[in-house]
Amino acid sequence: MSLLDYFRVSRRNSAAIAKERLQILVAHERAERSKPSYLPMMQKELLEVVQKYVNVDQNAITINVEQDDRHEILELNILLPEDQLQPRKAGRG
Amino acid sequence: MSLLDYFRVSRRNSAAIAKERLQILVAHERAERSKPSYLPMMQKELLEVVQKYVNVDQNAITINVEQDDRHEILELNILLPEDQLQPRKAGRG
Repeated sequence: MSLLDYFRVSRRNSAAIAKERLQILVAHERAERSKPSYLPMMQKELLEVVQKYVNVDQNAITINVEQDDRHEILELNILLPEDQLQPRKAGRG
Repeated sequence: MSLLDYFRVSRRNSAAIAKERLQILVAHERAERSKPSYLPMMQKELLEVVQKYVNVDQNAITINVEQDDRHEILELNILLPEDQLQPRKAGRG
């Protein structure tokens, strides 16, 4: 299964709503578990990068962390405001 | 299927190698296709953030982009060098 398949399947319900959405995943696959995680710190800086490109409402961010023995996954879901979706009148074709 | 499941399944083969790996995915779910993508620009800055936390060899980065009508997915796979994995002698128990 490709990643694209994953997003197609898992986001199928939201497709009908036609919202603009940005999802950032940081998956750290570790050789050992005991080391401290830097993902929480990295999370803040990654969001700062995103905010340079899109106008993000802090309330529109959902953060999820999953982990097991070997993986730590940070998931940032950002629902983008509609007012910046400025549809391009000049279509492509 | 959870994201953690996705990574467990898709990375099963690499588990035996016990490498440290960081994967960053940026998935943009768009309401319309015609708008320009900012993911290529964002990619560079996201990598700069990562490099503050881990020592990344440019040759150890694999970049993949997938897209369909509604999704654009940027995937950065970073194999972390073993010399920074400093195993902690003092185990957790």
